[in-house]
Amino acid sequence: MNILDIITRKKNGISLSYDELEYAFNGYLNKKIPSYQMSALLMAITINGMNMSETLALTDIFIKSGEEYHISDYINNSVDKHSTGGVGDTTTLVVGPMCAAMGMHMAKMSGRGLGITGGTIDKLESIPGMNLKLTKDELIEKASTVGFALSAQTSELTPLDKVVYALRDVTGTTESLPLIASSIMSKKIALGAENILIDIKVGDGALVKNQSQAEELSRMLKEIGTSYNKKVETIISDMNTPLSYAIGNALEVKEAINVLKGKKCPLYYKAVECAANLLSMTRGLDYNESIIYAEKAIETGKALEKFYEFVKSQGGRIDELELAENVIPINANKSGKIKKIDALGAAKLAAKVGASKMKLDDTIDYSVGLYLNVKEGDYVKEGDLLLKVYVNNPNIELTNSDFSFIDIEGE
Amino acid sequence: MNILDIITRKKNGISLSYDELEYAFNGYLNKKIPSYQMSALLMAITINGMNMSETLALTDIFIKSGEEYHISDYINNSVDKHSTGGVGDTTTLVVGPMCAAMGMHMAKMSGRGLGITGGTIDKLESIPGMNLKLTKDELIEKASTVGFALSAQTSELTPLDKVVYALRDVTGTTESLPLIASSIMSKKIALGAENILIDIKVGDGALVKNQSQAEELSRMLKEIGTSYNKKVETIISDMNTPLSYAIGNALEVKEAINVLKGKKCPLYYKAVECAANLLSMTRGLDYNESIIYAEKAIETGKALEKFYEFVKSQGGRIDELELAENVIPINANKSGKIKKIDALGAAKLAAKVGASKMKLDDTIDYSVGLYLNVKEGDYVKEGDLLLKVYVNNPNIELTNSDFSFIDIEGE
Repeated sequence: MNILDIITRKKNGISLSYDELEYAFNGYLNKKIPSYQMSALLMAITINGMNMSETLALTDIFIKSGEEYHISDYINNSVDKHSTGGVGDTTTLVVGPMCAAMGMHMAKMSGRGLGITGGTIDKLESIPGMNLKLTKDELIEKASTVGFALSAQTSELTPLDKVVYALRDVTGTTESLPLIASSIMSKKIALGAENILIDIKVGDGALVKNQSQAEELSRMLKEIGTSYNKKVETIISDMNTPLSYAIGNALEVKEAINVLKGKKCPLYYKAVECAANLLSMTRGLDYNESIIYAEKAIETGKALEKFYEFVKSQGGRIDELELAENVIPINANKSGKIKKIDALGAAKLAAKVGASKMKLDDTIDYSVGLYLNVKEGDYVKEGDLLLKVYVNNPNIELTNSDFSFIDIEGE
Repeated sequence: MNILDIITRKKNGISLSYDELEYAFNGYLNKKIPSYQMSALLMAITINGMNMSETLALTDIFIKSGEEYHISDYINNSVDKHSTGGVGDTTTLVVGPMCAAMGMHMAKMSGRGLGITGGTIDKLESIPGMNLKLTKDELIEKASTVGFALSAQTSELTPLDKVVYALRDVTGTTESLPLIASSIMSKKIALGAENILIDIKVGDGALVKNQSQAEELSRMLKEIGTSYNKKVETIISDMNTPLSYAIGNALEVKEAINVLKGKKCPLYYKAVECAANLLSMTRGLDYNESIIYAEKAIETGKALEKFYEFVKSQGGRIDELELAENVIPINANKSGKIKKIDALGAAKLAAKVGASKMKLDDTIDYSVGLYLNVKEGDYVKEGDLLLKVYVNNPNIELTNSDFSFIDIEGE
């Protein structure tokens, strides 16, 4: 086999065999194929696509590049969820405890944030003491007993996906649906839960730009799941506006707790939707019935209890969660209707105050961020509070353009 | 400007500006853009194409990356020719002296062969003593006085094309017409002859696969020429079968001499066609009239005289040209019509006996090669001579499959 032939075939729109994909991708992992050849192949795949059998093959090659945990061999009613990346998306921290409260077991691996997308690991690190590097045995043990355990992704699982993702990130090849599908599903299947829910975010700043792409991705994810005997469901949701009022690590943890205490906001409804989907898959229940159980998990306080149990079992001291002391209120400069709260703009402001990394070597301040007081469609009067900015540096320079992500349609 | 944005725009089929192309390509030359990003961009260009204004821009960026010789400022009736690469294509060694004999001046830079494509520099190196590393002044002086001078490409001219070509060669991005056009024309324009003839080879093993691609490439080459006030003409010719009977360096030099002595074979007609085209461009003559002059240049012996003058002026001792001593005759194993003599197969056999490099670190034996005794369409009887193989190692193992490039349609 010859890498140039493989690249040329894909350049010409010909589909590649399992062996050809394995030769190219494993060759890259083993440093036999240089990055400039892999990036040429990735670009050819991004432009010319891959059919389902290629996508299945690549997923399998990713999985087999590392260890497999086979979670469902150790845990019953095992569930997993994944979001393709959003702003203020703290769903996992609400859904995990809800699932645990309903007798499911979520052993989850999460990533860190980069750019505008937050990472669950960063959020949980705002809780002093949290141990987010669990071994396979610890992860399984905690998921079995507590019902929810969460660990940072290790390079034991799908190391090939890791190196390929890093290259895609710097070569303009992130927005390929078959590559996105292979990347997501290989990680889920290497972990091995029985029931998997994928939240596909759609929006200008997201990897998935529109509804029809989201539907195509959904079909791919489900078909990959089927081929590994896993149940896969998807939710397609808008990410043009932030999911929750909080953007920033400790702020989002606090917001998750508020929702688990019963606060009815967009994050609440999203979490109920996710938990109900997982319950419906796991127990074969009707979706509407599942919604009732999911809401009850919050109502009864059981989900909140599970959240505290989860934090404690991983060494976290939730009482020590800290927010920045300086709170800058931002008020409306005119009266009118909130026409738009742009997710990208909000994420950029959060990054500016230090809540997330824009570059790999930035550091994160867990205690800073934004807390929105309004949502799209609300009416405000001039001088009304729009949001609070939590900062540690009271001299930080914020200008009007930092707040232009909130668009008020004047009267 | 941002390289990821540039790659993504081309991935999405958007045309790039001069500034964007300059940022990306000069960034690569200056090692600010890594090869994996350049190869992703080259693949996006190869698949999604470039329009004429992008192709002109890239040509200009290639030219400006190095020195420009402005040959036509020093030499009148300056001509240049280029072939996109063929098997047994010794045309330059015939056309150069013919042009000189007709009062034109060819200052040419040539490359080395790699893979199945022969290189004029390798061929001339088979003549002991030949100096093929001329300075700019030497090249101009010899082209002015002798009428034909030839030097190996230096990295003074279009260094950017050189590094980009090397990357294209290993990333499956050689078969892009706009990239081919930019590469060829930048070298021709950096040298700066007034009249340029490009011989576009078409065939399965060539960069250009079919007639319509060749015509598109021809339009691009001419349009680039026009924008630099250069006359550009093209010839489109088949390279499915070897151009001349000889394949191998010294053998091809000998064959060029035979043609200059008046041997009427395909190489003769090709050389007359090229020389007549250049004469017609330079002097504004009718093409048919130019053909008469071109044939006369050979008939009168003037072109042959110019060839010897050229060799001598660059230090070559033509009397010392040597062919390998062992000549293995290969005879027809059946009677019939020669249906096909495959250029690729012939080139592979020539490479096997040592006439060309298949890898960069191979060495060349100038004295070995093939000499065909038949051409397509000939009829042979069993036992008739098909070709002679010139080798220095008399124990070389040649099998029937080495000669399967000659297809005899049995009776």
